[in-house]
Amino acid sequence: MPLRSDWSGATCPIARSLDVVGDPWMLLILRHALLGVRRYEDFRTGLGVADNVLSRRLPAMVDAGLLRKVPYRGEQRSHYEYVLTEAGADLLPVLNALLLWGEKHTTAPAENDEMSIWHQPCGARSNSADVCSNCGETLRAQDVGWLRSWRTAAPEPLTGAGI
Amino acid sequence: MPLRSDWSGATCPIARSLDVVGDPWMLLILRHALLGVRRYEDFRTGLGVADNVLSRRLPAMVDAGLLRKVPYRGEQRSHYEYVLTEAGADLLPVLNALLLWGEKHTTAPAENDEMSIWHQPCGARSNSADVCSNCGETLRAQDVGWLRSWRTAAPEPLTGAGI
Repeated sequence: MPLRSDWSGATCPIARSLDVVGDPWMLLILRHALLGVRRYEDFRTGLGVADNVLSRRLPAMVDAGLLRKVPYRGEQRSHYEYVLTEAGADLLPVLNALLLWGEKHTTAPAENDEMSIWHQPCGARSNSADVCSNCGETLRAQDVGWLRSWRTAAPEPLTGAGI
Repeated sequence: MPLRSDWSGATCPIARSLDVVGDPWMLLILRHALLGVRRYEDFRTGLGVADNVLSRRLPAMVDAGLLRKVPYRGEQRSHYEYVLTEAGADLLPVLNALLLWGEKHTTAPAENDEMSIWHQPCGARSNSADVCSNCGETLRAQDVGWLRSWRTAAPEPLTGAGI
């Protein structure tokens, strides 16, 4: 997918990362993938995204190594699921950092809506994007839950890299 | 600046953050601002960015509360500098998370080029985006240095929110 510029050969690793994920839709797709979404239709309805946007992003994310396309047997015919790779799951700290910044510097539409990061093995809330504030362990996607107060009372476990 | 969608009223704080900084140029401008760049011309030459791109981003970032426009007395006439706000400096973890991901999952053009995060008060390198891996302190912009091996031998101190 053409970005505004090609930063793939940049010396700065921030620019090289933005060459891959410097697109808000891709980061929102990754958010859903971490929450366990794998199918085109579920991304589409969950994100409220137009077909032309989604149908360009998903193959671009496969090409970039963030998602893998895995066949599954549907009722009528073969379909594909999009499964997080290690590289895709490793973007959790970027999403967590955006989450923490958004909680601090933007305003939720309803006063008590809050999203928070929980380290499941020790059951503690983390104020860091990549390290558990309680035990100091690195936050791996498969050990993290996101608590969205407007949806559930307990954190929803995230999905790591799939098979 | 019009993004593809308006996420400013989203319940999810990740989407609200992307409504503000879901643009790769803004994040690269923030990278330069953290490294001390304040003037239009210095952003332009440092980023290699077209005037039409930069001249739309900087006012949008002022409107979004990431930068403040501060007058200074030039040789001929008054000019403005763009100074990081607290909200802008608080995006350091997002940039650090992109930096760490880029170092792990993308390839630098030259083999030994490396960028790393250093916590200046304790002099240690951090593998976390927002917490010092050595002392556990929160990484505030004014206490962090970025070491870009292709530029300097010691970390370059970052700039926090300005006056």
